[in-house]
Amino acid sequence: MAHIELGNDLPGIRGLLAYRPQTAEPLGELAEVLLRGDNTLTRGERELIATYVSRRNECEYCAGAHAATAALQLPGGADQVSQTLADPGSAPVSGKLRALLDIAGLVQQDGRMVTEEAVAKARAEGATDLEIHDTVLIAATFCMYNRYVDGLGTSPPADPAEYAAGARQLVQYGYRPPR
Amino acid sequence: MAHIELGNDLPGIRGLLAYRPQTAEPLGELAEVLLRGDNTLTRGERELIATYVSRRNECEYCAGAHAATAALQLPGGADQVSQTLADPGSAPVSGKLRALLDIAGLVQQDGRMVTEEAVAKARAEGATDLEIHDTVLIAATFCMYNRYVDGLGTSPPADPAEYAAGARQLVQYGYRPPR
Repeated sequence: MAHIELGNDLPGIRGLLAYRPQTAEPLGELAEVLLRGDNTLTRGERELIATYVSRRNECEYCAGAHAATAALQLPGGADQVSQTLADPGSAPVSGKLRALLDIAGLVQQDGRMVTEEAVAKARAEGATDLEIHDTVLIAATFCMYNRYVDGLGTSPPADPAEYAAGARQLVQYGYRPPR
Repeated sequence: MAHIELGNDLPGIRGLLAYRPQTAEPLGELAEVLLRGDNTLTRGERELIATYVSRRNECEYCAGAHAATAALQLPGGADQVSQTLADPGSAPVSGKLRALLDIAGLVQQDGRMVTEEAVAKARAEGATDLEIHDTVLIAATFCMYNRYVDGLGTSPPADPAEYAAGARQLVQYGYRPPR
């Protein structure tokens, strides 16, 4: 049961987006630009950053939804996602993505924890300024989405199979609310 | 010095918004809807929630910018802001706003910390479901903005008087990026 009467029984953020279309619009646009817009980071890599931050914030709904979406868009599928979450330091991803995940983990704790050293390491692994920018902003946005979903006491789907179904829809249609 | 080359020397989030217009658009729209859109919470009250969360996250730029904006829009001005930040429990604001600030402080820590009791207290003080929703989302969005500003190592303005000048602009023109 959510903390407020949403007038729908959609799980996680979906119930909140339906409740307040005025904020759903920029929230959806932000996810669309960051996770699916033109970028030198792949969609799978960006979903993995989102999943990693959501898992660190222990947001069950967001972690489940984005793990499923990352799995569909990464060459190594669900195994690559679960191995990364289990041990990011030895994740089966590029050295650049490992360094960006490290930055994302620092942002998740507190923006002020991001050090020159962490940024220099990502740059040495080939990360561009824009990739570093987008990693910080993806991590920051998921600190928002996670708090929104959990702060209003929403529920995850009754059946975890819904994450995979939702992920297929996201991969096909994206994050913008339907008009 | 920011962690990345922004190509401008604007302080705080302003340098980041100028650097990446594609994300500036939804970030500005979100602040506009939440802090200035039609609402039963006044603009000053919503800026006070934003300031409170930014101060708890120790984001110097956001706390300074929104404290100045709140001061311009609250009947009690800067004194009302500083008294609220110094002791939220006895803040010179309505009982409803004190209860909403309490919820915002829980969201700032972790969305899962928001309890039924905290929500019931706000409701007993007259808060509507939409006010509770918007409070949670304002608090969550500032956990994003704060991490974005600090995670990229931006600098606050050299002269704190710039906060007041920026606040007058925000009150007049709002948060949407100029087109």
